[in-house]
Amino acid sequence: MLVNRKQYRTVWMNSGSVFMIDQNKLPFSFEIIECKNYRQTAEAIKNMTIRGAGAIGAAAGFAMAQAHIEKEAENAKKTIESTRPTANQLFYAVNRVYKASDPIKEAQKISDEDIQACKKIGEFGKDLIKNKTDGSIFNIETHCNAGWLAFVDWGTVTAPIYMAQRSGKKIFVYVDETRPRNQGARLTAWELKNEGVPHAIIPDNAGAHYMQKGEIDLIIVGADRIAANGDVANKIGTLEKAIAAKQFNIPFYVAAPLSTFDLKCKSSKDIPIEERNEEEVLYQTGLTKNNKLEKVLIANPNSHAKNPAFDVTPAKFISGIITEKGIIKPTKEAIAKLFR
Amino acid sequence: MLVNRKQYRTVWMNSGSVFMIDQNKLPFSFEIIECKNYRQTAEAIKNMTIRGAGAIGAAAGFAMAQAHIEKEAENAKKTIESTRPTANQLFYAVNRVYKASDPIKEAQKISDEDIQACKKIGEFGKDLIKNKTDGSIFNIETHCNAGWLAFVDWGTVTAPIYMAQRSGKKIFVYVDETRPRNQGARLTAWELKNEGVPHAIIPDNAGAHYMQKGEIDLIIVGADRIAANGDVANKIGTLEKAIAAKQFNIPFYVAAPLSTFDLKCKSSKDIPIEERNEEEVLYQTGLTKNNKLEKVLIANPNSHAKNPAFDVTPAKFISGIITEKGIIKPTKEAIAKLFR
Repeated sequence: MLVNRKQYRTVWMNSGSVFMIDQNKLPFSFEIIECKNYRQTAEAIKNMTIRGAGAIGAAAGFAMAQAHIEKEAENAKKTIESTRPTANQLFYAVNRVYKASDPIKEAQKISDEDIQACKKIGEFGKDLIKNKTDGSIFNIETHCNAGWLAFVDWGTVTAPIYMAQRSGKKIFVYVDETRPRNQGARLTAWELKNEGVPHAIIPDNAGAHYMQKGEIDLIIVGADRIAANGDVANKIGTLEKAIAAKQFNIPFYVAAPLSTFDLKCKSSKDIPIEERNEEEVLYQTGLTKNNKLEKVLIANPNSHAKNPAFDVTPAKFISGIITEKGIIKPTKEAIAKLFR
Repeated sequence: MLVNRKQYRTVWMNSGSVFMIDQNKLPFSFEIIECKNYRQTAEAIKNMTIRGAGAIGAAAGFAMAQAHIEKEAENAKKTIESTRPTANQLFYAVNRVYKASDPIKEAQKISDEDIQACKKIGEFGKDLIKNKTDGSIFNIETHCNAGWLAFVDWGTVTAPIYMAQRSGKKIFVYVDETRPRNQGARLTAWELKNEGVPHAIIPDNAGAHYMQKGEIDLIIVGADRIAANGDVANKIGTLEKAIAAKQFNIPFYVAAPLSTFDLKCKSSKDIPIEERNEEEVLYQTGLTKNNKLEKVLIANPNSHAKNPAFDVTPAKFISGIITEKGIIKPTKEAIAKLFR
């Protein structure tokens, strides 16, 4: 997608090097880093220079392709797999490239497939975004970042938004800031600004308020994992939006590729919730007026915090799931059919 | 209440001076300032050294008493009334002291009445906090700060909590950080820490998650204004908690003195919602590791934010309102009866 009016992907390979947008620097600085060997690429995955399911998968595939060039496939496989041990997409990509007869081509294929899946999600999802008959603006709310930065291009939640915008629909996006890591305020807002999509950051507290006022027409969120019964694990706060959306009869959609479904999980009861470091809640890193990054304590110095990273939204609160194979109902039957 | 194991009020008068806790410095530094004349006290109200309905009322009463001593009652009345023009309690206190035959005594009476109302709220409200039959901890969630810092002593939401704690009940408080101004993480957490009440700060996003897990037994919030039909305007985010509480069958109570009811507002439709400066969302002020206060940008530099200060919770989501005259249902009839 666009950055400063030029077209970019989050990660790509060229002449044996892997290039990627340094997402640790966003939104305050836009930098491309070059990883000259698989170790550098693995390190970039580990330190979250690149993050997001699809982007991690593509980067891991490219890293494995570099390892083949370096004739280090055996060592590399373990190194790359240990960078983000809970990322399913990473293992999938590493294994495909490891076994491939043409590793570079296979890594490229994984990256291209990610883009195609997001594009398909965009094509199915964009019809949920309407041209309003009275000419007024169609308002979308989203939570966290399931944008193109989390994939190779387009994103899942953002693909329908970008396609609706490009087809001339009048839209506005309410971007939940998404505490504590502020991926909405930092990454989604950055993406939308670069694509020229009108938007405003809102405190997570304000979602239901705008729904109550009739100012939200559609909510789209991503997913970290979808159980066989349609329950969805996603960034903390998703559940509150889903409950409020149901209360105010606002369509609530999840956009995710098939790789997000985990049929081994029968329901949300089988999905563990990661508890992260309390420092993410108690501190914030931001830009001072002297353009320096500074970490500041924003809470009572002697208090502790709890920091659950995800929550689980029961299927009954979800209007539908937008996949690359179409929009389905969040039911056991519809999901089983997807994988038949 | 307790600060560093000593007893304090938010504001008091002694030998013609008004003393108050500097709430602009909390939670990073605890300082008492002395206002030697009504102008200094008015300035402290204006720059939010003191904030919260009850505390502002008491401070304004004391300022008016100072003006009587200084024989400046006429000028002072205008000056004090212009400090926070939307604070009802301020006008009420200024007028009472202005007309009183013994202004110092009257100002003291206003402060004492505030304390008594909070204590009564605590006595009625503490019975909602149970000793669990299985000996486990009773978990309370609260939003924003309706603690003693917002009044003269005890607070409204916190009075039942402090009284339950002092009577030996095993409790734990989930403190919503309350973006964008973080009054929960900064002020409520500071209060609870000083009173020795076990608690944890949580991102506003995490409320429904803990409710879903059965980890919240009771929610108590304050109110900025209560309409004649029981609709409640309170800090942004209150509505989301109320909707989620209803979904998970968790008791949701509002604690507020009678002065919060505005019978001229028939319902929430008559309550205007203040939109505050976007900078409160885009920036955060906190303490650097060198113990310096620094303001940092925490969002995409070129994006805008929306910042509604309050939202309105319809009466149907509220289990009851804890007042100094008892706990009532949020209905037109029950509220009318309160004022008969």
